[in-house]
Amino acid sequence: MNLAHVGMVMGSDSDLPVMAQAAAMLERFQIPYEVKILSAHRSPDAALDYARKAAGRGLKVLIAGAGGAAHLAGVLAAVTTLPVIGVPIKTAALGGVDSLYAMVQMPKGIPVATVAIDGAANAAILAAQILAVHDPQLKARLAAYKEELAREVAARDAKLAQLGIEAYLREGKK
Amino acid sequence: MNLAHVGMVMGSDSDLPVMAQAAAMLERFQIPYEVKILSAHRSPDAALDYARKAAGRGLKVLIAGAGGAAHLAGVLAAVTTLPVIGVPIKTAALGGVDSLYAMVQMPKGIPVATVAIDGAANAAILAAQILAVHDPQLKARLAAYKEELAREVAARDAKLAQLGIEAYLREGKK
Amino acid sequence: MNLAHVGMVMGSDSDLPVMAQAAAMLERFQIPYEVKILSAHRSPDAALDYARKAAGRGLKVLIAGAGGAAHLAGVLAAVTTLPVIGVPIKTAALGGVDSLYAMVQMPKGIPVATVAIDGAANAAILAAQILAVHDPQLKARLAAYKEELAREVAARDAKLAQLGIEAYLREGKK
Amino acid sequence: MNLAHVGMVMGSDSDLPVMAQAAAMLERFQIPYEVKILSAHRSPDAALDYARKAAGRGLKVLIAGAGGAAHLAGVLAAVTTLPVIGVPIKTAALGGVDSLYAMVQMPKGIPVATVAIDGAANAAILAAQILAVHDPQLKARLAAYKEELAREVAARDAKLAQLGIEAYLREGKK
Amino acid sequence: MNLAHVGMVMGSDSDLPVMAQAAAMLERFQIPYEVKILSAHRSPDAALDYARKAAGRGLKVLIAGAGGAAHLAGVLAAVTTLPVIGVPIKTAALGGVDSLYAMVQMPKGIPVATVAIDGAANAAILAAQILAVHDPQLKARLAAYKEELAREVAARDAKLAQLGIEAYLREGKK
Amino acid sequence: MNLAHVGMVMGSDSDLPVMAQAAAMLERFQIPYEVKILSAHRSPDAALDYARKAAGRGLKVLIAGAGGAAHLAGVLAAVTTLPVIGVPIKTAALGGVDSLYAMVQMPKGIPVATVAIDGAANAAILAAQILAVHDPQLKARLAAYKEELAREVAARDAKLAQLGIEAYLREGKK
Amino acid sequence: MNLAHVGMVMGSDSDLPVMAQAAAMLERFQIPYEVKILSAHRSPDAALDYARKAAGRGLKVLIAGAGGAAHLAGVLAAVTTLPVIGVPIKTAALGGVDSLYAMVQMPKGIPVATVAIDGAANAAILAAQILAVHDPQLKARLAAYKEELAREVAARDAKLAQLGIEAYLREGKK
Amino acid sequence: MNLAHVGMVMGSDSDLPVMAQAAAMLERFQIPYEVKILSAHRSPDAALDYARKAAGRGLKVLIAGAGGAAHLAGVLAAVTTLPVIGVPIKTAALGGVDSLYAMVQMPKGIPVATVAIDGAANAAILAAQILAVHDPQLKARLAAYKEELAREVAARDAKLAQLGIEAYLREGKK
Repeated sequence: MNLAHVGMVMGSDSDLPVMAQAAAMLERFQIPYEVKILSAHRSPDAALDYARKAAGRGLKVLIAGAGGAAHLAGVLAAVTTLPVIGVPIKTAALGGVDSLYAMVQMPKGIPVATVAIDGAANAAILAAQILAVHDPQLKARLAAYKEELAREVAARDAKLAQLGIEAYLREGKK
Repeated sequence: MNLAHVGMVMGSDSDLPVMAQAAAMLERFQIPYEVKILSAHRSPDAALDYARKAAGRGLKVLIAGAGGAAHLAGVLAAVTTLPVIGVPIKTAALGGVDSLYAMVQMPKGIPVATVAIDGAANAAILAAQILAVHDPQLKARLAAYKEELAREVAARDAKLAQLGIEAYLREGKK
Repeated sequence: MNLAHVGMVMGSDSDLPVMAQAAAMLERFQIPYEVKILSAHRSPDAALDYARKAAGRGLKVLIAGAGGAAHLAGVLAAVTTLPVIGVPIKTAALGGVDSLYAMVQMPKGIPVATVAIDGAANAAILAAQILAVHDPQLKARLAAYKEELAREVAARDAKLAQLGIEAYLREGKK
Repeated sequence: MNLAHVGMVMGSDSDLPVMAQAAAMLERFQIPYEVKILSAHRSPDAALDYARKAAGRGLKVLIAGAGGAAHLAGVLAAVTTLPVIGVPIKTAALGGVDSLYAMVQMPKGIPVATVAIDGAANAAILAAQILAVHDPQLKARLAAYKEELAREVAARDAKLAQLGIEAYLREGKK
Repeated sequence: MNLAHVGMVMGSDSDLPVMAQAAAMLERFQIPYEVKILSAHRSPDAALDYARKAAGRGLKVLIAGAGGAAHLAGVLAAVTTLPVIGVPIKTAALGGVDSLYAMVQMPKGIPVATVAIDGAANAAILAAQILAVHDPQLKARLAAYKEELAREVAARDAKLAQLGIEAYLREGKK
Repeated sequence: MNLAHVGMVMGSDSDLPVMAQAAAMLERFQIPYEVKILSAHRSPDAALDYARKAAGRGLKVLIAGAGGAAHLAGVLAAVTTLPVIGVPIKTAALGGVDSLYAMVQMPKGIPVATVAIDGAANAAILAAQILAVHDPQLKARLAAYKEELAREVAARDAKLAQLGIEAYLREGKK
Repeated sequence: MNLAHVGMVMGSDSDLPVMAQAAAMLERFQIPYEVKILSAHRSPDAALDYARKAAGRGLKVLIAGAGGAAHLAGVLAAVTTLPVIGVPIKTAALGGVDSLYAMVQMPKGIPVATVAIDGAANAAILAAQILAVHDPQLKARLAAYKEELAREVAARDAKLAQLGIEAYLREGKK
Repeated sequence: MNLAHVGMVMGSDSDLPVMAQAAAMLERFQIPYEVKILSAHRSPDAALDYARKAAGRGLKVLIAGAGGAAHLAGVLAAVTTLPVIGVPIKTAALGGVDSLYAMVQMPKGIPVATVAIDGAANAAILAAQILAVHDPQLKARLAAYKEELAREVAARDAKLAQLGIEAYLREGKK
């Protein structure tokens, strides 16, 4: 675990079902990672301590998921020079537009690389792209993934051409 | 200065024209205060240090103004038990709805007492109301202010009755 | 009951499931409170009468929860010098952004200390912070609560480290 | 003045330039009116007193303009059975969507007849339509106004047909 | 039926569950009404014909409910001098903010008296207030309704005082 | 199939339940069409290839449905001179306002004819209107459809007049 | 003029500066057009009459620009089978999101082909694309325009490569 | 120039004043870059060609600025495995919320690392952080920049302490 390249942090275990998609994607790309529950507001010391030591512990990228007044990614970014990727988590009242604004609208000097609301899988892919800048094997895995995405779309297109709309929809409901 | 009851903090000196209205209102209520520029993102250590020592230094209420991904109030609130009042600052792109969401949508456990976008004067009045809970003289000043507000409205109403709409508007343009 | 320090008011009994979280939190902090259903629109006389007498009856802080064109907090604040905390209640059509705007965007002179949409628990904590300005025992309870929050986060983080993501999620579903 | 049929109220004299359009339209329809500055928040007693006595003083319709957490129309409507027309005033930060939500989203039992943001002229026309329900002469004036609107559009259409786009735009800039 | 004072129109029968609340409220106030399904877009001739003849048929107020690009109220208002009350219907995608904007933001000359999203009951009360301008008995019924609203709130407040929060919530779930 | 006049494309098979409504409407108007799953992001080559060859293959109109950062319609429009109709698909977090903005706000030079969120049936009708510009028989079918819409509304209106509100609603629930 | 293929309509002459961009683009594509000021609300008879006769007069496409509760395009579309393109005009208070929603969110059966806020030039290009379905010469002009767009971008890119950022910006300010 | 590590692309030269801030920041960090005007919609072939060849040409990170239906970043990301950073450009009508949604809400598989509206400087810092993962000297420059940010804030705080609010504001106006 102490060989982790990506540190994945979330503000609450209620974010785990979403953030688990990032973990799955990191595993797919064979990227060692660690996962932490650390709150910018409820455990600020632990969160800051984690971010301050992240680079020294060998971490290369941080991913932070949080919702509402989603400060976690920004708070980590304030105390590390590692790239910090933010995942705004969907909220019950405002659909996550609050999380999105609180993450993406960072002031000059301290960026957070924000992905889509609940876009945890894409946070992992972005982390892979960052790590692949100096890792040709990982870059090859990313290229293969891209090809697989295209193949999947093509396979569904072919299936739709074969079945027609109604049968395709019926099959989807089974 | 070290007798300040209110610590007023802003994330950038670009917030000062708005936050100066809070200072003016605190002076009106004869509340000793101090004013600081401290950024949650650019000077996190100073900001946290300030908030951690605030209660020990005799401060009773904090006011924080910030814009965009406005984390300052929440970051202070994370490390103090003092009430923290947040002033969301209007932004060029989104009008301050980003600042508002990033301030008001705090998670359970860590409230920020949020006032209107650019509502710095009201932040000061709220601080006065909090301090007046145990200060009858301040409470009297607040009551007097409330009466003055009503008198001002009544005076304008009387002037409008006397002048009529057109003359009132002409006078306002002089 | 007439020793209550916090007056908690809501505009409709449909707000009670949310506002009950404020009551629970006030009890946790051992703060005496009373709870009222008073509507700014349907029972304005009762609401105004309550707010006008609140300070005289020994109340120190008011909490008001309301939804939609959520005027209750502002109407109370108009006739008292006590600090008024507003809880915007989530609405079916607009998710509570209407309640939030109607509460937080108060004009100069009459602040409402607004917390998150459905953030009733935080309204209670804010009331506690206000009362703690002159109550060292309550301040100690707030500090203990803050530590408990951090411990809870740390416990979940430790559990996640032990179980891993999948087992943690499985356990949550039991 | 004490024969006024319409009571036009605004929360601040900063609303007067917009509300003056309502006055001009009422005069056009020869509807006697009075105009008041009364704040739901800063002079609540005067505002409530005005609304409570409105029907008894012979007023038949109220028009209320306010911005931000625009409670004025709702507060008047709470204590009168007269129809209350609300004009949400445009705001610097949020463009008036705050004023609109705070006016239109009234709870069951207490309607406010809301018109467009800054739509003061339409508030007056709506008041005229309400008064015309039992006033054939006023109804005739409304019908004539409608015809005039159509004639004006037709005249501009004819002028555009004659001049062409460029000449029409040049003339408009003179 | 041809003695109806209020013409209630909706753009689709999918709006009927909401608009039925207006009907119930009109019945409560003993106001004769008629109810129609007429679409501004799908049956424009019928809708325009209805509005053009409305005043001649003795109707005094129109209520129109519609969702999405909710033009019905505006289209009716374009061809009648009767007051037109609009009920923006909640929509699946945007919660009704589309319906609200399409109704309330009418241009100068043609007002629509807009009530809350899904606020059909309030549309009926507003119609009653308009009719009551020249109907003292109806005005008395409105005053009685207002008192009943206050009594209902007071009764719930008393019940809450008696039962306490937990028992009150338990009873509500039965 | 190679006689298709309309090419209907969607970014993911999760859009198919919505887009199937376009297919049904095209069939109703006897317009030959083909349906494809092609992603602007996951299979960009296939999507661009499809659009580049569309006119040459005899297609006359393209319909594209996509959600979120919905680039599909714009990407197709960038490489064809055929009219491209966009259907913004409703999204879980933001209700489809993201899809709408990403489709409709195209820069000068490259329009997308955008219909309502999830408005696939209307996309098909718009395609029919475009094809009918030079097809009198199709124009006649469109006119007949318009009459049928009006008849359906009239039939529901008549049924409501006969049954009354309560019986109508009861029947709808059966 | 009676040979016009495109009927361009706007609700007010205040929309003319924006809509003039559509006229310029139609002229560029050598498409005969006519331009009208017709209001859905202030001159409904003229607007409906125009749309009803449009197809018979030889018009093939309608373009409608309107702001606020922008019903014009929908009202025209209700009474014609011609394709109707809508241009939502930017508004002072809400930036045109009201115009956009009131145009694009049309109910099933009556589409409006909506382009960007103030996107009048694109409305004309879309009209050209529609007319080009059966006009190879116009299609060739559209293809040439597309190539010119690409050339313009390439020319600016080359100029930027040559001048560098600072000189490019200086030149733009001259 | 062909040694560039960062490829900075914008959809229009109207984006250049904003994107120039990214260039300045890249220069500060001594990161070789190139700058291009390439439109996803008007010059799609050039844009795609650029992105497809980017990695092969030695580029390591792409930055894309675009406004409105801002597809540029997503279109580039679709055909490269390099990390793509998106800068949503502020728009006249919607303030850039359209640009933001069109950039950040990317589907699973194709992330765009989105920064704040008009946040071009932060895009460059994020690019530096990505490159610094394997470049200790660049990491040191980032750390130095972070310290400088903190020093700047501290200097302004000290100046404010010395001058007081009024003198500070006066000096800012000089």
